[in-house]
Amino acid sequence: MSRVYNFSAGPATLPVDVLEQAKAEMLDWQGTGMSVMEMSHRGKAFVSIAEDATARLRRLLNVPDNYSVLFLQGGAAGQFAGVPLNLMGSNPKADYIVTGNWGKKAIKEAAKYGQPNKAASSEDTTFTTIPGRNSWQLTDDAAFVHYTPNETIQGVEFQDTPDVGGVPLVADMSSNFLSRPVDVSKYGVIYAGAQKNAGPAGITMVIVRNDLMGKPQSGCPMILDYQQQADADSMLNTPACYAWYMCGLTFAWLENQGGLDAIEAINKRKAAKLYDFIDASDFYSNPVETSVRSRMNVPFLLADDNLNADFLAQAEAADLTTLKGHRSVGGMRASIYNAMPESGVDALIDFMQTFEKKNG
Amino acid sequence: MSRVYNFSAGPATLPVDVLEQAKAEMLDWQGTGMSVMEMSHRGKAFVSIAEDATARLRRLLNVPDNYSVLFLQGGAAGQFAGVPLNLMGSNPKADYIVTGNWGKKAIKEAAKYGQPNKAASSEDTTFTTIPGRNSWQLTDDAAFVHYTPNETIQGVEFQDTPDVGGVPLVADMSSNFLSRPVDVSKYGVIYAGAQKNAGPAGITMVIVRNDLMGKPQSGCPMILDYQQQADADSMLNTPACYAWYMCGLTFAWLENQGGLDAIEAINKRKAAKLYDFIDASDFYSNPVETSVRSRMNVPFLLADDNLNADFLAQAEAADLTTLKGHRSVGGMRASIYNAMPESGVDALIDFMQTFEKKNG
Repeated sequence: MSRVYNFSAGPATLPVDVLEQAKAEMLDWQGTGMSVMEMSHRGKAFVSIAEDATARLRRLLNVPDNYSVLFLQGGAAGQFAGVPLNLMGSNPKADYIVTGNWGKKAIKEAAKYGQPNKAASSEDTTFTTIPGRNSWQLTDDAAFVHYTPNETIQGVEFQDTPDVGGVPLVADMSSNFLSRPVDVSKYGVIYAGAQKNAGPAGITMVIVRNDLMGKPQSGCPMILDYQQQADADSMLNTPACYAWYMCGLTFAWLENQGGLDAIEAINKRKAAKLYDFIDASDFYSNPVETSVRSRMNVPFLLADDNLNADFLAQAEAADLTTLKGHRSVGGMRASIYNAMPESGVDALIDFMQTFEKKNG
Repeated sequence: MSRVYNFSAGPATLPVDVLEQAKAEMLDWQGTGMSVMEMSHRGKAFVSIAEDATARLRRLLNVPDNYSVLFLQGGAAGQFAGVPLNLMGSNPKADYIVTGNWGKKAIKEAAKYGQPNKAASSEDTTFTTIPGRNSWQLTDDAAFVHYTPNETIQGVEFQDTPDVGGVPLVADMSSNFLSRPVDVSKYGVIYAGAQKNAGPAGITMVIVRNDLMGKPQSGCPMILDYQQQADADSMLNTPACYAWYMCGLTFAWLENQGGLDAIEAINKRKAAKLYDFIDASDFYSNPVETSVRSRMNVPFLLADDNLNADFLAQAEAADLTTLKGHRSVGGMRASIYNAMPESGVDALIDFMQTFEKKNG
C-alpha cells in the first residue's frame, strides 16, 4: 500500500491514524462482534460512540451550555434551507454576506423561504476580497446575518468574527471548521459539512443557540427541525452512524494533536510556506488579497494556462493528487486541511519548484 | 475477533464479505493511494464507484429506462417530506394506507404540505393485519397513493403490489427493499433507507418515474428536489460517498448470491423456519395474521413477560444480539434481513428451544 498526498477540497484527506483505527475495528468494534455500521443506533454501543463524539466536539470548541450540537444528514447545502426554515419562522428578513460561490448558493436557497438581503458582496472583485464591515448594508430587524467564513472555491477567509451587534450570526463554517479556535458564543448558528476537517461526507454538524430553536416555519421537514433533532439527540430518525463514528475518531486525533490552538499554529505555518513560495515566484500567482487569504484552500495560477495539463499529470505521477482548480476559477487549488501533513506541503512546493525550472 | 448473530432491525447486519472488502480497501482503494472517504466526489475514481453501484441496483431490480435512481441523504424520514414536496406541486391530495408506525409518521409529515387522506388503516387491529384492497377509500383525483410494503416494527408485509389504477403508487420500501423481486414499473416512486438490506445508514435510494419529477412545491429544499438531483447524478451537493460505496459492495454481494430471485428463496425459507417453530410452540407467539407476516421482521412474545429480561440476557450470552422488541409492541423481534445467514436463524431457534425447555 502506498498513500498519496491528496489535495482534494472535500471530501478530503483524513488522518492515517483515524483510517487505521477504522480498519482495525471494521468487523468487530471493541469486542461487540459487530461493525459500527451494523449497530442499532438505539443500542448502548452506538449511543456511547455518539455521546463520546459529541463531548469531544464540545470540548474542542468549548461550546457553551446554552448551545445544542446536532449531527444531521443533508450537507451544508441542506442547511442552506435548514437555517431559514428554522430561523425565519416569524421574521422573513435576513442579511447575507456573499464572498464566494457558497454564499451565492446559500442566499439563493434562502429566497425560497423569506426575503434575504444581499447586505454585502465581493463579486465585483471576482471574490478575491472581503467587503469591509463598515460597507455592509445590514437590515435593522433581520432574523439573522449569514456569512461564509471560508470560501472553498475562491480561497478567501475571514480572519476574525464580524461584529453584527445583537443579531444572531450564522456561519457556514464547512471549510475552516476545527482549523482554528472559534468563540462559539458570538454565533447564533454554526454549521459545517464534515468532509473537510471533521470526517467523511454524509454528516453535518449544526451548533445552535437554544433560544433560536422551536419556532420553525410550518413547512420545515422534521429531519431539518433543530428543536426536534435536539430533543432526540440527533436521532429523530436513523442518523449517519458510521460517519458520526468517523467524526469521533477525527476529533480524538485532533485532541491528541493538542486541540485547536495547536492545529492553528500548524495550519498557519503550512499556509505561510505555500503562499510565500507562490509570492516569491514569477511563474505562480494567487489572486486573493493578502489579508484574506485562506489557510485551507490555496488557489494558484500558472503563468501559462497551456501548461496546466502537464502540471497536473506530472503532479499526479509524483503522488500529488487532486490539484485541479475549480472550473469557475481555473488553474490549480491545493487544499491543505488539518489532516494534510506539513510534509505534503513541502512535497508540493518541491514539485512546483522543479516544474517551474523546467517550464518557467 | 468473534462475530455475533445480530438481529437488529436497522442498522443491521452486513455480509461479512462486504465488511472484509471495505476493511482491505480502507487506506488505499484499488491503488489510488487513498480511502474512498477521501476522494473528491467529482473525481474519476469516485464517479466510477457511484456509477457501478447505480448500474448494479438497476440490474438487480430491472429498473426501466424511464426511471431515475437517486442516492440521497436524510433517510426515509426525509422522504416523508420529499415525496409530497415533489409530487404535490400542483395537487395537494394524496391517499395514505397506514399499516404500522412508519405509515403513521409518513402521513403526519405529508400534512405539512397538503391534504393527505388516510384511505385505509389497520390500527384497529394494532397493525396485525393489512386492510383488504376493496376496503380502501381512495380519492378520485389523488396525486399519489402511499403505502409501506413492510412495517419494521409490527412485522406485517404486503405479499403483492396493490393495484391503484393509474394513480402513481409510492412505496416506503425501506425494510424489504432488495429482499424479493419487485416490478418497478408498477410504481411512481420507491424509496428506501439503506440500513436494512442495502448498506449502512446515511443514504437513501429513491427510484422515481421521470414524468413525476420537475414540478416540486416552491418550498422544496434543493437537496430533496428529485429533478435537480437526477440532473446532477445525485451530486447536487456532496453525497454520502462512503455509504454509497458500501451499497455498491452490498449490491455486488447480492448479485453473487444469484440476485433477487435467489435471495427471496432463502428469505422465504429462513422466515418459514422461524414462524413454523413459533407456531408449533405454546411458549412463543406471533400476533400477526398469517397471510401478511413479514419475512424480514419477526416479532414474538414469550408466554410470560417476566421472562423477557432473562431471555435477552441469555441470548446475548449466546452471541444472539439485539432481539428486544420495539417498545410499542413489546416482547422480542428478530430481524432476518438478506445478510442474516440461515445458520443465524438456526442458532436462534436452537436457543429458543432450550430456553423454552428450561422455562416453559
